[in-house]
Amino acid sequence: MTQRIWNFSAGPAVMPEAVLEEARSNLLSLGTSGIGIMEHSHRGKAFLKVYEETEALCREVGGIPANYKVLFLQGGASLQFAMAPMNLLAKDRTADYLITGAWAEKARDEAQRFGSVHAACSSEDANFSYIPGECLFSAHPAYVHFTSNNTIFGTQFRSEPTPPPGADLICDASSDIFSRPLDISKYGMIYAGAQKNLGPSGVTLVIMRDDLVDRGPKDLPAMLQYRTHAKNDSMYNTPPTFAIYVVGLVLKWIKEHGGLAGMEERNQRKAGKLYSYLEQSGMFKPTARPDSRSLMNVTFVTGNEELDAKFCSAATKAGFDGLKGHRSVGGMRASIYNAFPEAGIDALIEFLREFEHQNG
Amino acid sequence: MTQRIWNFSAGPAVMPEAVLEEARSNLLSLGTSGIGIMEHSHRGKAFLKVYEETEALCREVGGIPANYKVLFLQGGASLQFAMAPMNLLAKDRTADYLITGAWAEKARDEAQRFGSVHAACSSEDANFSYIPGECLFSAHPAYVHFTSNNTIFGTQFRSEPTPPPGADLICDASSDIFSRPLDISKYGMIYAGAQKNLGPSGVTLVIMRDDLVDRGPKDLPAMLQYRTHAKNDSMYNTPPTFAIYVVGLVLKWIKEHGGLAGMEERNQRKAGKLYSYLEQSGMFKPTARPDSRSLMNVTFVTGNEELDAKFCSAATKAGFDGLKGHRSVGGMRASIYNAFPEAGIDALIEFLREFEHQNG
Repeated sequence: MTQRIWNFSAGPAVMPEAVLEEARSNLLSLGTSGIGIMEHSHRGKAFLKVYEETEALCREVGGIPANYKVLFLQGGASLQFAMAPMNLLAKDRTADYLITGAWAEKARDEAQRFGSVHAACSSEDANFSYIPGECLFSAHPAYVHFTSNNTIFGTQFRSEPTPPPGADLICDASSDIFSRPLDISKYGMIYAGAQKNLGPSGVTLVIMRDDLVDRGPKDLPAMLQYRTHAKNDSMYNTPPTFAIYVVGLVLKWIKEHGGLAGMEERNQRKAGKLYSYLEQSGMFKPTARPDSRSLMNVTFVTGNEELDAKFCSAATKAGFDGLKGHRSVGGMRASIYNAFPEAGIDALIEFLREFEHQNG
Repeated sequence: MTQRIWNFSAGPAVMPEAVLEEARSNLLSLGTSGIGIMEHSHRGKAFLKVYEETEALCREVGGIPANYKVLFLQGGASLQFAMAPMNLLAKDRTADYLITGAWAEKARDEAQRFGSVHAACSSEDANFSYIPGECLFSAHPAYVHFTSNNTIFGTQFRSEPTPPPGADLICDASSDIFSRPLDISKYGMIYAGAQKNLGPSGVTLVIMRDDLVDRGPKDLPAMLQYRTHAKNDSMYNTPPTFAIYVVGLVLKWIKEHGGLAGMEERNQRKAGKLYSYLEQSGMFKPTARPDSRSLMNVTFVTGNEELDAKFCSAATKAGFDGLKGHRSVGGMRASIYNAFPEAGIDALIEFLREFEHQNG
């Protein structure tokens, strides 16, 4: 078999090898069923068992209270950018958005189609290199929306913002869901595309308090009402069965590795090592402000675009894939989600050190 | 390895073993890339190559003219039920729907939210057991929508209805796409969830003439405008990369097996054998009218519910899975899409004959 390389992709991203191996062994026959996992009817006993186990694991791993629904939808976070305000923002109300990056802006842009929007804070003044400390909320927002981790800019909220009384907290957690313990009861809704911390692309996890599920107008298209999916256990229509199955395997892997507390410890150690190296480097500098740095996406530059390009090219050749930074930040980005192995961090630091030594 | 059984599931459904084997061999490393197919960035060279090959194969196999876009979306046919009228039915216009089953009704119900709807024909009077021969169109419909194959009722259009001048033809082809040659130029839009003839659930193929792509209002949510996906080659946001990859493998398999003409010949032979047996049987009777029978879903009954149940139970024990009919028709349904092997038809006929002999 081909040797696996270090995959720093921002998403779809590296997955645990144990998960890939288990998926592989069930492609032609799920267990002893004689039917591959992709070929099972979503209404059949075999898949229903997979679905129930995945939901139960999600509730257990995520500590999700009984008064929250767990939904597995399609369309990615981008469809949630529209669905959330369609269902939760009345035309005469205001929603507050915390503007900490490009994805927060996209979420806000969709909300503007349905009601009023207020920017409660923004870090655009410094190219989104930090998480603002204070928010100026509107008088009575319907909800407060934030992006817990900003994949492009390498910043992450240390803890949830506190919305004003009466406003629900909504979070796009696509790039740090289940990377650390969460107090779900603080949220009205959390959503996340699976392709960073949860599994393959093509399924979106939505965790939503029961009363919000039923708040949306009933004249929306059936597929765009949360209640449709909640009433039908995410099977109003054929769900992305294979993607849900793989999410279940990833959740099992998280559970076996200490749950969310285990993930947090592992992620702090991994990112800590890398930031420590960058802090003392004479060549590479982190781009995010120390108090706002992400444990998921570590962004850094040399300060010289040519040298950045030389580094990326050398890294690719040496088996470090996906390190080129997003064009809006430049430089480099190491995406090191839950499943990224610690040995890959050690190898990257060694490679950075060597490159610095040879080009310094 | 566990022996594979005969899988008559209506969808997700049986897939070619060669496809499953190729997918399996690329789960931990796509070719020699060192990164599994699910883990590759959708922006990276390796996946872009997969995407381009899949689209090119789709155009080649389907004979899709250059003035049509090929899109790979999420949300299934059910989201298309809403997206099509959102984009193509102005509030003051009428769309004509051919009511040939439960899915046609669901499509019509969503269209009613956006404009007027006219039922150009219906076979509800005989529990949708036939395809009406004549349509009574409204004066100037914006489009005419039909469901080419009715999975639940086992009926299928022999050829496309001819819409009145000026009206575009829109087709939900979820359960018979690419099962026979198609003249795409007759259509404004064809859409199909992948999970019957194209691959795993979680991706929807949309084939749409260029002028329709740009017809939708620009104040719709970005994800619900066809132009968003067309402009971005289905990568406005992260697409369901693995599902698209598998669709590509299935298209390759179709091409290697004679393309759509090969599929038609194979499907006619498979369904022909089964209907011939049912026609002469003293116990089992097809439920669909002879001129309307589907080559994809063969529905039949004994006329005795207890005997139906006894048959389904015996069939399951003998390794014939998924034969229980939909509750709205009862009896049995054999879904025998492109990938269902002819040997499985022979085995089923043998089993039917034996059951009839022992219980007649």
